[in-house]
Amino acid sequence: MNRSDQLIQRIITSVEDLPGERPLNERLVQGIKDLIFRGELIPSTRLPSSRDLALGLGWHRSTVVQAYRKLVAAGWADSGVGRGTFVKQQQESATPLREPFTWAEVIRQDEGLYEMERVLSRNVALPDGASPIRLSGAIPDLRLFPMEDLAEVLNETLRLRGPQALGYGPTEGLTMLREEIAGRLSRQGTPARADQILIVQGSQQGLDLVVRRIVRPGECVAVESPTYSQALALFRNLGVRLAPIPLDEEGLRVDILETVAAREKIRLIYTMPTFQNPTGLTQSVERRRALLDLAARKGIPILEDHFDAELRYEGEPVPTLKALDTRNQVILLGTFSKILFPGLRVGWVAAPEPVYDSLSRLMRAVAISTSLLSQIVMAEFCAQGLLDRHLDRVISIYAQRRKALLDGMNEYFPPEAGWTNPQGGMTLWVTLPPGLNSVAVTMEARRRGVSVAPGPLFFVEGGHRNLSLSSTAEPSDRLKQGIRILGDILYEGAAGEKGWSGKKSEAGPLL
Amino acid sequence: MNRSDQLIQRIITSVEDLPGERPLNERLVQGIKDLIFRGELIPSTRLPSSRDLALGLGWHRSTVVQAYRKLVAAGWADSGVGRGTFVKQQQESATPLREPFTWAEVIRQDEGLYEMERVLSRNVALPDGASPIRLSGAIPDLRLFPMEDLAEVLNETLRLRGPQALGYGPTEGLTMLREEIAGRLSRQGTPARADQILIVQGSQQGLDLVVRRIVRPGECVAVESPTYSQALALFRNLGVRLAPIPLDEEGLRVDILETVAAREKIRLIYTMPTFQNPTGLTQSVERRRALLDLAARKGIPILEDHFDAELRYEGEPVPTLKALDTRNQVILLGTFSKILFPGLRVGWVAAPEPVYDSLSRLMRAVAISTSLLSQIVMAEFCAQGLLDRHLDRVISIYAQRRKALLDGMNEYFPPEAGWTNPQGGMTLWVTLPPGLNSVAVTMEARRRGVSVAPGPLFFVEGGHRNLSLSSTAEPSDRLKQGIRILGDILYEGAAGEKGWSGKKSEAGPLL
Repeated sequence: MNRSDQLIQRIITSVEDLPGERPLNERLVQGIKDLIFRGELIPSTRLPSSRDLALGLGWHRSTVVQAYRKLVAAGWADSGVGRGTFVKQQQESATPLREPFTWAEVIRQDEGLYEMERVLSRNVALPDGASPIRLSGAIPDLRLFPMEDLAEVLNETLRLRGPQALGYGPTEGLTMLREEIAGRLSRQGTPARADQILIVQGSQQGLDLVVRRIVRPGECVAVESPTYSQALALFRNLGVRLAPIPLDEEGLRVDILETVAAREKIRLIYTMPTFQNPTGLTQSVERRRALLDLAARKGIPILEDHFDAELRYEGEPVPTLKALDTRNQVILLGTFSKILFPGLRVGWVAAPEPVYDSLSRLMRAVAISTSLLSQIVMAEFCAQGLLDRHLDRVISIYAQRRKALLDGMNEYFPPEAGWTNPQGGMTLWVTLPPGLNSVAVTMEARRRGVSVAPGPLFFVEGGHRNLSLSSTAEPSDRLKQGIRILGDILYEGAAGEKGWSGKKSEAGPLL
Repeated sequence: MNRSDQLIQRIITSVEDLPGERPLNERLVQGIKDLIFRGELIPSTRLPSSRDLALGLGWHRSTVVQAYRKLVAAGWADSGVGRGTFVKQQQESATPLREPFTWAEVIRQDEGLYEMERVLSRNVALPDGASPIRLSGAIPDLRLFPMEDLAEVLNETLRLRGPQALGYGPTEGLTMLREEIAGRLSRQGTPARADQILIVQGSQQGLDLVVRRIVRPGECVAVESPTYSQALALFRNLGVRLAPIPLDEEGLRVDILETVAAREKIRLIYTMPTFQNPTGLTQSVERRRALLDLAARKGIPILEDHFDAELRYEGEPVPTLKALDTRNQVILLGTFSKILFPGLRVGWVAAPEPVYDSLSRLMRAVAISTSLLSQIVMAEFCAQGLLDRHLDRVISIYAQRRKALLDGMNEYFPPEAGWTNPQGGMTLWVTLPPGLNSVAVTMEARRRGVSVAPGPLFFVEGGHRNLSLSSTAEPSDRLKQGIRILGDILYEGAAGEKGWSGKKSEAGPLL
């Protein structure tokens, strides 16, 4: 075979390798482009004459001529009368050579992750040495964890299941755990089936999956204002726009959402209707129905975050949005981390069937599956009644702590301060006396050994007059001690003795 | 206060709440827009006269007039001579009401996740009952796991660390584990520091983080062709374009990448230079240097996937790209899952400092942290020498299995079949005799109790003449038995006895 025949043969093979149905001339264009793309046809190579190639392909010559014209028009080839058709030299990218390589040019910018989140992230580090009084963060008290139960469950798991417990698990999650979660939800009044439950590596991953499946960068998500700080961080990273909707004592202001939705195309509503983070507020049933009605009229899916809804200290449970949902448009997001073992990273998503498959495929692509050992442990804790036993215990303890926190605030806080009084959950929401800035208060509190979370962490913008306080992570006496210190700071600040408010740079290590 | 004064007061508060420095008239525009946005200024409300509002704000009247003009121009307000300025009725979205709500309209489409991946995903399910001979998937043999060591480490961890082992961990990962990984890498010739190691929930999550940080949807990633199937699934889900670059015996064809990079702006090169998945091929040092040189000239970061590089059965180790990298442009991705306990979901990313912080912030936003218990277990396995002991053991076992697989293919496969002969790793790559289709072969093999992975899983397009075979998951006798069955299928197919190739619909449950 001479060179021209070889080239014809290569083009024929390339055309024959193409999948699908297309007009012949387009197949030829694609086949030649593929050869160029793969570097097998280099610039300045003369393409076979249209006659020879048509003979080789067994096609009409006009088909080849047409394909060559398209290649020239698209900039892949050059032609001149009597010279034939040539593979065109492609222009080098106009980007100058980089020497040395710089990451700044290739990293996608952080979307609004700011220094304050770094401050909060230090809260999450393992304590070493002296530990501050922790009034920040929706976290359970590790000291209450039933460690003997855990040791028993782990040893039993290794003994009975052997190495299978340490392999890759199914993407959707362990069937036994999905059944336990579905049963739990159903008993609590939210009918659910195991095949609607997707197990994820903590509800944060569930949030990521749902938003990625439903919202594109630049599209708009309605969030409560204030809302969960790490949801804000995630939304910013995903490049979605946010429509912050205020709350009142009955929860999300559906009337304001209505106004916003008239102006903006809202792609998703992210809400924590029960014991909202950070305010602790619970949405009334009437408000929930109004929200579902609005969402149905506008065709907006709802992501309901159920993270601490089981921690009720008083009052009657309110049905979940999912339980009230007659149109199958609510995705429910849950986690065990607020009750037990956040270090196991087990959360779940309860999703209607059409979105379930889509979420499950994404889960597989981004994470393969959730830790199987973690899932088995949580499933056994559910099945053996250990989770409920622990839940009963922490509810009574957390209720006392909540009371201690409220008593402390009544006793030690200036009368100009205000706060929410939730019936459950992990956090409540303080409005500072006028003139005080929450970040300055936070920094001063940390200097005095008390960790609180400043308002701006929870807002799209603003929040300087608020603090979030958590009542779950410390025993009552420590909570009260922390509130007393915080009260001193507020009194000093309100009295104008705010020497501390300018000392930000002296803070040193915060925790 | 009358209504007009109340309104003026509300506007003043809204303007005063605005952060940052802006011209006065723009502050006023924003302040009023915020009130409308929040639903506090409803349509048809008459705005205060410019004179009254200017008095209230203590500004020049012309500033207010200017702001009102801007509001009218932007469609937020209407005005008429002598009538004043009014909040404009916003148009309802043109989208018709949806009744009932339909998920199909709100789910982002899967990007190229096809039925075949579903077939593969079944491989990952926990076996129940009779198990097929597993020649598919880069997975370790669970039966070799040192379960007694694990039980000891777990009990010791619970005893010594108590509930702290079950809390939220630091986002970057447990310091002890990061030090162990950095030390391991350094001893193996890839200098690394603990503060460059980010612990992730399996290397799949690391891949997701890196690509999200560096590549936007629509931008182009160069991948080996064939490449890791779940990387393809991830890339498709992220909506990035792919430039598939062929391999030869020395690995990635850098010359072809050069041609492609001249035409396309490549944002990232994803490569597995050692024991590539699925081919098992290892890139030569010369080729690695050429790749680094190209990447430096073009300013393209490299993501080096190190997943099974420690599983070397023969020959001398080749330095990682990261070890050869003088320009700090390689991110190294690793996992323990190919050696030990994939069910713990622990992987890691070794990243240069500028990109490290960015990845760590994204990790926090999408996952909070990796399972702390899993991290402690892996750290103790490293520190106590249990990982290396296990590695030594499985390397000798997997080397025998690889030999059994190769012997089996030499004995039972038709001479027209070809395959790679890697010096390590988990998989090798078969080219089928002409005329055979890999999907049809795969389906028939499954019917006969043998699980293999068909070529198209690993290609952007094509691959119908290839199979990926794994030699790690089964003992030698089962591997040989599987190869014998597969050999029968290939002989029957090559001889034209392909009755089975059309039976796809009868397959029933595949595993």
